[in-house]
Amino acid sequence: MAQKGDLMTVRSDIRVLDATIRDGGLVNSFMFTDEFINALYRANVKAGVDVMEFGYKASKELFDVNKFGKWKFCDEEDIRAIVGENNSDMKISVMADVGRCDYKHDIVDKKDSVIDMVRVATYIHQIPAAIDMIEDAKAKGYEVTCNIMAVSNAQEGDVAQALEMVGQSSVDGIYIVDSYGALFPEQIRRLTDLYMETAEKYGKYIGMHAHNNQQLAFANTIEAAANGASLLDATMMGMGRGAGNCAMELLLSFLKNPRYNLFPVLKFLESQMLPLKESGAVWGYDIPYLLTGHLNQHPSAAIDYTKEKRTDYSEFYTDLLDK
Amino acid sequence: MAQKGDLMTVRSDIRVLDATIRDGGLVNSFMFTDEFINALYRANVKAGVDVMEFGYKASKELFDVNKFGKWKFCDEEDIRAIVGENNSDMKISVMADVGRCDYKHDIVDKKDSVIDMVRVATYIHQIPAAIDMIEDAKAKGYEVTCNIMAVSNAQEGDVAQALEMVGQSSVDGIYIVDSYGALFPEQIRRLTDLYMETAEKYGKYIGMHAHNNQQLAFANTIEAAANGASLLDATMMGMGRGAGNCAMELLLSFLKNPRYNLFPVLKFLESQMLPLKESGAVWGYDIPYLLTGHLNQHPSAAIDYTKEKRTDYSEFYTDLLDK
Repeated sequence: MAQKGDLMTVRSDIRVLDATIRDGGLVNSFMFTDEFINALYRANVKAGVDVMEFGYKASKELFDVNKFGKWKFCDEEDIRAIVGENNSDMKISVMADVGRCDYKHDIVDKKDSVIDMVRVATYIHQIPAAIDMIEDAKAKGYEVTCNIMAVSNAQEGDVAQALEMVGQSSVDGIYIVDSYGALFPEQIRRLTDLYMETAEKYGKYIGMHAHNNQQLAFANTIEAAANGASLLDATMMGMGRGAGNCAMELLLSFLKNPRYNLFPVLKFLESQMLPLKESGAVWGYDIPYLLTGHLNQHPSAAIDYTKEKRTDYSEFYTDLLDK
Repeated sequence: MAQKGDLMTVRSDIRVLDATIRDGGLVNSFMFTDEFINALYRANVKAGVDVMEFGYKASKELFDVNKFGKWKFCDEEDIRAIVGENNSDMKISVMADVGRCDYKHDIVDKKDSVIDMVRVATYIHQIPAAIDMIEDAKAKGYEVTCNIMAVSNAQEGDVAQALEMVGQSSVDGIYIVDSYGALFPEQIRRLTDLYMETAEKYGKYIGMHAHNNQQLAFANTIEAAANGASLLDATMMGMGRGAGNCAMELLLSFLKNPRYNLFPVLKFLESQMLPLKESGAVWGYDIPYLLTGHLNQHPSAAIDYTKEKRTDYSEFYTDLLDK
């Protein structure tokens, strides 16, 4: 597929989604202070970020509300306490995991909600359940994306079939999700071409959510964009599970649209992200994450290893190879 | 230009050069212990690294030998104290900067040296002086590369002319050097195409030396390789000036040639690089380096800022914009 746009001009279809609370919440069990969330909301609005994700709509039947911060559940009143009626141009999204969300009950009609977008996260074998959630959220009035996770581990034939099924749904956008940080730019270009075929056939847009296991989150995000992806996920200082995500500061300094403004992001990093890091939250590229990414595995073993503050990388690698 | 090779197969023309001492020496004034250098040499041989750079051949007239470690000067006997006659398949290189090297005197005939390769580092306005050094080193019997620095700041017409001049010399290889870490993969592909034209016309190979200001050193290195570059620089844990370089552990885990072995690199990282980091050597991606890279500036302001342990990123950005 031909490259879309170039390095000098603006692609007006491109939007940036801040996933700091949602993916970053996987680092600290969503235990953010209200001050942090308030500052993040204001920084995102000032920076021209298009969508801010507040967290998950997780089932309170499945998850103990005392063990997680409120952004794992994203109650309407908690979001409103930060944004009021959200009198800004920025949209608000939440993520709903297949099998972990009481969506029929917990996702209310759009007319009663300050949320604009629901992102349905699914593994490839759960697509029928995902489509049920998509149709539910669309019927309630939301913009809806389908985020097909761990695509680096899926068979290409299955991906093609999943795209066809989701393409025929009323979803608005479909995400490439490199959950394991295993993919190289060359593969991202190939995948984006594949996803864009469905997008053009069914009138959907494509999104990109990258992980930084091999220091490729930013590179893969801009490669996906160059091949047509238009909803790009980033997080402040790359905060996210394991090796983290594409850093907002890298993405905004790359994009040429004058509506984006790096300065409020820098202010937020120095005032909020550095103290958060100093308080003990750990994320970002490190050798153990490189190794799980390289082996196309879930980062859980690397997360445990990092928590134990082990640095015997060669031993860890042998353990991974032995699995 | 068509892509060269793919993600599954081996490109036998690709070689890896370890520049840990040379670029990393810019972090600690080349004050490495002999134990470190010994362990690095042995790790590189075991890992299948093709070329190991020991440092600079800097002029002792210009630089005070008491202010730098010995690898800024790379005396023959110092290298031999580590490698003996270098009874390995790995080549040994040194870098010689235009205007900072008494090459006529300090670079001896290859037959009297354990060094195999001389890399001539030059800015684009110094090409005639670089060619004099290239011809001197070639006449003495070395493999020689020309590393044209800071290419992100050069006019494309000047680059084309420089390539033509160097192409007509007896140099063996020509390097793309992204000194400021300012280039995006898309630009690297374009530049590699340009360099490869000269390479194919004059029978030279192309090298790639990246910096990690925008977390793109690895991505840019593999993009250059995909477009035909075949001598790839990397350093252990990415150690190098400012944001550092392409990490050896990333590059070796990417390359498919079974002669490369990641395991001795991991052993070296845990036994030597972690203690070096803990001893206070500072390098690697950080916000100030992103900002100088983004603005296509030399990282010196960011290095000073980082040394002062400042974290007022927004103020630093304003200062840079005001220059």
